[in-house]
Amino acid sequence: MSNIRHALTARRADDFAQWYQEVISAADLAEESGVRGCMVIKPWGYGIWERIQRLLDDRIKATGHENCYFPIFIPLSNFEREAEHVEGFAKEMAVVTHHRLIADGKGGLMPDPEAKLEEPLVVRPTSETIFGDAMARWVQSWRDLPLLTNQWANVVRWEMRTRMFLRTTEFLWQEGHTAHADEAEAREHTLRMLEVYRACAEEDLALPVIAGEKPENERFPGAVETWSIEAMMQDGKALQAGTSHYLGTNFSEAANIRYQDREGQQALCHTTSWGVSTRMIGGVIMVHGDDDGLRVPPRIAPWQVIILPMLRDKPEDEALLDYCEDLRSKFAGKTALGEPVRVLLDRKPGKAAAKRWDWVRKGAPIIIEVGGRDMEAGTVSLLRRDRLWAENGKPDFAAPSVAAAADDVPRLLEEVQGELFRQAEERREANITRGLESFDAVSDFFASNGKYPGWVEVQWAKPTGAALDQVVERLKSLKLTIRNVPMGSDAADGSCIFTGAPATERILLARAY
Amino acid sequence: MSNIRHALTARRADDFAQWYQEVISAADLAEESGVRGCMVIKPWGYGIWERIQRLLDDRIKATGHENCYFPIFIPLSNFEREAEHVEGFAKEMAVVTHHRLIADGKGGLMPDPEAKLEEPLVVRPTSETIFGDAMARWVQSWRDLPLLTNQWANVVRWEMRTRMFLRTTEFLWQEGHTAHADEAEAREHTLRMLEVYRACAEEDLALPVIAGEKPENERFPGAVETWSIEAMMQDGKALQAGTSHYLGTNFSEAANIRYQDREGQQALCHTTSWGVSTRMIGGVIMVHGDDDGLRVPPRIAPWQVIILPMLRDKPEDEALLDYCEDLRSKFAGKTALGEPVRVLLDRKPGKAAAKRWDWVRKGAPIIIEVGGRDMEAGTVSLLRRDRLWAENGKPDFAAPSVAAAADDVPRLLEEVQGELFRQAEERREANITRGLESFDAVSDFFASNGKYPGWVEVQWAKPTGAALDQVVERLKSLKLTIRNVPMGSDAADGSCIFTGAPATERILLARAY
Repeated sequence: MSNIRHALTARRADDFAQWYQEVISAADLAEESGVRGCMVIKPWGYGIWERIQRLLDDRIKATGHENCYFPIFIPLSNFEREAEHVEGFAKEMAVVTHHRLIADGKGGLMPDPEAKLEEPLVVRPTSETIFGDAMARWVQSWRDLPLLTNQWANVVRWEMRTRMFLRTTEFLWQEGHTAHADEAEAREHTLRMLEVYRACAEEDLALPVIAGEKPENERFPGAVETWSIEAMMQDGKALQAGTSHYLGTNFSEAANIRYQDREGQQALCHTTSWGVSTRMIGGVIMVHGDDDGLRVPPRIAPWQVIILPMLRDKPEDEALLDYCEDLRSKFAGKTALGEPVRVLLDRKPGKAAAKRWDWVRKGAPIIIEVGGRDMEAGTVSLLRRDRLWAENGKPDFAAPSVAAAADDVPRLLEEVQGELFRQAEERREANITRGLESFDAVSDFFASNGKYPGWVEVQWAKPTGAALDQVVERLKSLKLTIRNVPMGSDAADGSCIFTGAPATERILLARAY
Repeated sequence: MSNIRHALTARRADDFAQWYQEVISAADLAEESGVRGCMVIKPWGYGIWERIQRLLDDRIKATGHENCYFPIFIPLSNFEREAEHVEGFAKEMAVVTHHRLIADGKGGLMPDPEAKLEEPLVVRPTSETIFGDAMARWVQSWRDLPLLTNQWANVVRWEMRTRMFLRTTEFLWQEGHTAHADEAEAREHTLRMLEVYRACAEEDLALPVIAGEKPENERFPGAVETWSIEAMMQDGKALQAGTSHYLGTNFSEAANIRYQDREGQQALCHTTSWGVSTRMIGGVIMVHGDDDGLRVPPRIAPWQVIILPMLRDKPEDEALLDYCEDLRSKFAGKTALGEPVRVLLDRKPGKAAAKRWDWVRKGAPIIIEVGGRDMEAGTVSLLRRDRLWAENGKPDFAAPSVAAAADDVPRLLEEVQGELFRQAEERREANITRGLESFDAVSDFFASNGKYPGWVEVQWAKPTGAALDQVVERLKSLKLTIRNVPMGSDAADGSCIFTGAPATERILLARAY
């Protein structure tokens, strides 16, 4: 099929990073804003985020959480109070120091020296401390527990090297914060939310993920346990797509979150926090994109079916548009994947072929073209984004009758959703290597398996402290990190590849975003 | 009915400001955060905002707009470029000057002097300039127009005196930004969005509003026309609940938003912007609240029906909860106001009577109590929040059968929605005074009509420039402002109350938030 003329210039196999940037631009997802490290999320990209938000929000509410909203500014003293937090947390944060602009006498503006804040404010990088302050006020008795809250918000971390969706100075996310009466319940809740993330990633975004616990060195500062879901990108790297933390009583002690138990005694709460962000869209691109652009899983596609009338800028266009509007309402009356089908009749002026390729690059799951001849024949020309090309190297259009197309659309959308997941899972399974029994074998593996070596699963004895630091350094020399300890993996039965001691766990090693 | 024991301490008639604060706290809507001028929006308050968001977002999308997301930081130079903007716009803004914190050597943290930004960043107070930059990139030809965008975001204006929901340093809003090929279309769009706001306020929030154009002195800086919707609070003051601006080519010139027209000529776009914010929740409180707390219109109530089982902490509770769960699912299967009924079974521990009064204060439209005797009789005890008290000064419970209650709930919710609007409209009409023919008459009116004098509609000759400034000063001495020139009001037929010249318009004068 080398005669295919793909819709993008870059190829995944040649230059994955350049291909990634081209998809973002060609699918009209986002662009640089001119503000350092911040992007503008364009309508198609934001539409995908709105879908993710709605589906994940439903899941978060179904597990008993309520949304709320906390200030974007956090007083400096909150970070000081949280000593461990201060040490461990990246201190690259945006700091507000003034509350007024004045003329600088040269025709410009400057921060007014008279309006310097007594205490600088930090633009939230995450909100554990400020939620903690409120929890201390809200929780009085065991009757107030568990306290299950969440917020959708923007956060800022001053990143030195940014990449759209994956690492931006400002990003959008949800952060859940909960308080519980005891450790067992808090630990259980940490895993419950990890499972919510797994289900959302796999069922909604069609991203197969591996859920597991992070090693000690990758824990969120102040956490007792950090869990993650990890997805494999098409270049074999890992993307951490969501984390869930059991925080023990560390944040409760700092913020004084106490409750009166049933016996009348004061006790510290156990807290959790967990978040996923617009970074997930980077994962969708790198897992589902191909050399023709993005492929959006139907469940998160802002529009699932695009109807493209082949307009000719002539009076006959009117009848064709009426016909297409009728089609649109037929399709929109159907239900797929549990929701009404989302159908767009694209009335914008422009050549149908050019518009078709725009929608291919954007990754709309189904594109339906309708010309004068289709109208006469009562058929449509239907293209599935996940099976774009025919054997002959041309777009693989089907030509069902209108009635057949309307009946088929729900099934087709469900198939596309399933097919994207299946392809990604198959690719991931083919690219996890098991059975390497020494660090040297791992080193050889990554040296001799080309650009996209994938992940390896190895066994270790779970070293801690200085021994762990040493492991991290050795892995760093191969540009590798420990992704997580997969839940439900087989019991260890060999030796630690780092120390030779009897292994206790299996871990995933990978290059990562 | 003086024997009623109201659920709040403060009375609207005695101290409206204190009553307002008490409602916010008693209905658990929001609280001070400890960060100057910023509030924490608590679940019930945020749930109301989520409902407003969803309903307004549907309306905004139905008029052809797409959502996107722009950076929270705006470079200082954007404000400098917009000279008129710089002069007119409040310069009280949060300014980010550093991107790192370091230890201050005294156990604390401070902004790192080494990490001072070359160009300070302003936390967005509104986003015309940064949308303008993007529009200049996105718009090339007439085919790209109209460009209809919107974003939901947080914004920051450094307010000296803050009041929860009404004027906070950070608030949540949507801001729409559009570009059009010509003036007529842009003006028409400005009014289309004003109508969207009117419909949302009246139909969703049950807030009767008066739509009209703002006088010159109240225009958004850089706007050619500013339109508003104004609502009357129960203390007779006005609340501007939304604005829509026709910006002419002012922002297009500054950001260079040009397009090639059908004849191949370059032309400037005409732009609009429009926004509503969490301030609307302040309006809902001050229009619908009463001496028992908030009353939430059903369309924006996070929960419309609360089921309160009268638990006794005994084994029988189990059967009662099962029975109530069955009720919940019966009611939730019904449709009211075009959506499935939102029903909460409140399982929290606690006395039913205490919980009842919590929900009264929160303003849930319908509260249903179920005790052991109700269960035996197959009835429920039903309380409508808009008709709380019976003649005898006791809560006015009805006792329908379960079947009757389930059948009735949709109609009751529609009645509550309509009744809240009707009460507010009746109150407003009774409190607009017309026919005052001189400034002295206006002055006397406000001096002699007590605490809550309401609004007056007068005629004027629409002075401009210095003459308008004088009018504004005279009104200021009475603490009055011109709210707007109501759309569709009768033609002027008298003299200007300020100058005696033949009047050209009718305007509304009021004290305002």
